[in-house]
Amino acid sequence: MKTVSTSKSHGGIQGVYSHASDACACDMTFAVFVPPQAKDHPVPVLWYLSGLTCTHANVMDKGEYRRVAAELGLMIVCPDTSPRGEAVPDEKDNWQFGLGAGFYVDATEEPFARNYRMYSYVTAELPALIARNFPADMARQGIFGHSMGGHGALTVALRNADRFRSCSAFAPIVQPTTAGWSKPALEKYLGTDEKAWRSYDATLLLEDGERFPEFLVDQGTADGFLDEGLRPWLLEDACRKAGVALELRMQDGYDHSYNFISTFMDDHLKWHAARLA
Amino acid sequence: MKTVSTSKSHGGIQGVYSHASDACACDMTFAVFVPPQAKDHPVPVLWYLSGLTCTHANVMDKGEYRRVAAELGLMIVCPDTSPRGEAVPDEKDNWQFGLGAGFYVDATEEPFARNYRMYSYVTAELPALIARNFPADMARQGIFGHSMGGHGALTVALRNADRFRSCSAFAPIVQPTTAGWSKPALEKYLGTDEKAWRSYDATLLLEDGERFPEFLVDQGTADGFLDEGLRPWLLEDACRKAGVALELRMQDGYDHSYNFISTFMDDHLKWHAARLA
Repeated sequence: MKTVSTSKSHGGIQGVYSHASDACACDMTFAVFVPPQAKDHPVPVLWYLSGLTCTHANVMDKGEYRRVAAELGLMIVCPDTSPRGEAVPDEKDNWQFGLGAGFYVDATEEPFARNYRMYSYVTAELPALIARNFPADMARQGIFGHSMGGHGALTVALRNADRFRSCSAFAPIVQPTTAGWSKPALEKYLGTDEKAWRSYDATLLLEDGERFPEFLVDQGTADGFLDEGLRPWLLEDACRKAGVALELRMQDGYDHSYNFISTFMDDHLKWHAARLA
Repeated sequence: MKTVSTSKSHGGIQGVYSHASDACACDMTFAVFVPPQAKDHPVPVLWYLSGLTCTHANVMDKGEYRRVAAELGLMIVCPDTSPRGEAVPDEKDNWQFGLGAGFYVDATEEPFARNYRMYSYVTAELPALIARNFPADMARQGIFGHSMGGHGALTVALRNADRFRSCSAFAPIVQPTTAGWSKPALEKYLGTDEKAWRSYDATLLLEDGERFPEFLVDQGTADGFLDEGLRPWLLEDACRKAGVALELRMQDGYDHSYNFISTFMDDHLKWHAARLA
């Protein structure tokens, strides 16, 4: 692991790091905020998965998480959204596939299967790296994310309910198997047999019996992707049928941007901290 | 004036706007955050002047001012740092001069005098535009900024003490006439007669009798520009001789980045709000 940069913020340290990833067969970059409490004892870890087109940097620059994370003593880990590099297959001019659009799946189709293994990356390789290199209490982990990263957070939590104590999302893609901006990506990463897609769809994971104690979801009513791409009511249905608690908050007039995310960031951090205490 | 974008944030509206500027003889872009209180009555205006290489967007993305500005009912106006456009003379590969480095002066030297009139722009043209188009209480204005923009805030306040009620700065250039990264720019914008530079130097304005009630300055001790470019002790000297109150806070371990600025943003906003009430 290589330190790209560190900078003091709100009494903690905002760092950027890179490493040679086995899962993604390329160098990967990620951001970690270490709160001041970590000087004295290991602290809970909250994972933030970002949306389409983002790198580790978007939420680091615009998410406004450091003030409250420093107050609450939370470590915030922000992975990239896809493998990177010239050797990584991509579709230039398609922001919904390839670089910046890993969808947190392990691709099985060629030529993507070698690099696009973001599920393994965020659930196995990077957690092991964090555990080795940071003062992280890995017994207390939560996960959240935005849009494609909200999809990532929900599916990762449902498949690893023994590991994560809390999960929330900002404007998540709740049913990527049927949404126009994710279905073509799943087909290219996972093949045409839709059965293979089910383990990457929060609503279908619930249908198939996976459970998580509760979710918090914020969704802006002025989000341009609401009706076609996001459709939180599908998660509401799936949770109701599965008996899973969902607090879905429709936020009047908010869009899909970091102005929305940063407005409700404090709420999410406090919600997670209460469950990671 | 053209609206580039608006986005709800913390109950207010973060907007980006552009207009054809007379002062700079080019199109200029700026950001305005209008807090929710402006629905009911005009609100105080706080100007934020940015540092070298920045546009209006850096503090908008990374400054983390909206939450507390929305609480306190402050409008935040963020101008660009220089004229822009292909017709504007520039020195490519010199980040300390030209585009992104207007230094808030009115250039008198050719070929810069036509466009580089940022002092007039931020003190006359843009305030008039804000007064016409936003619910701003122009009787209650404050100003702050970072680095080159801290220099801008200090000099603008000293020269317009009748208009601004409050002034603060993050890591300001306090004596640009002698600092290595600003002296060459002043020479190119204003000519070699150093007398013309005095009205753009906070320490010399104080020496020449300009006064402002009080300043708040935060400065990180790990700021790589501290000893050569910033040197807040020169402002401390000048304020002491002039009998001007200066609260200079050396912040242990903080650098020159927005991680430093955003950490102390709340303090500055509250400090201004108390003086703009």
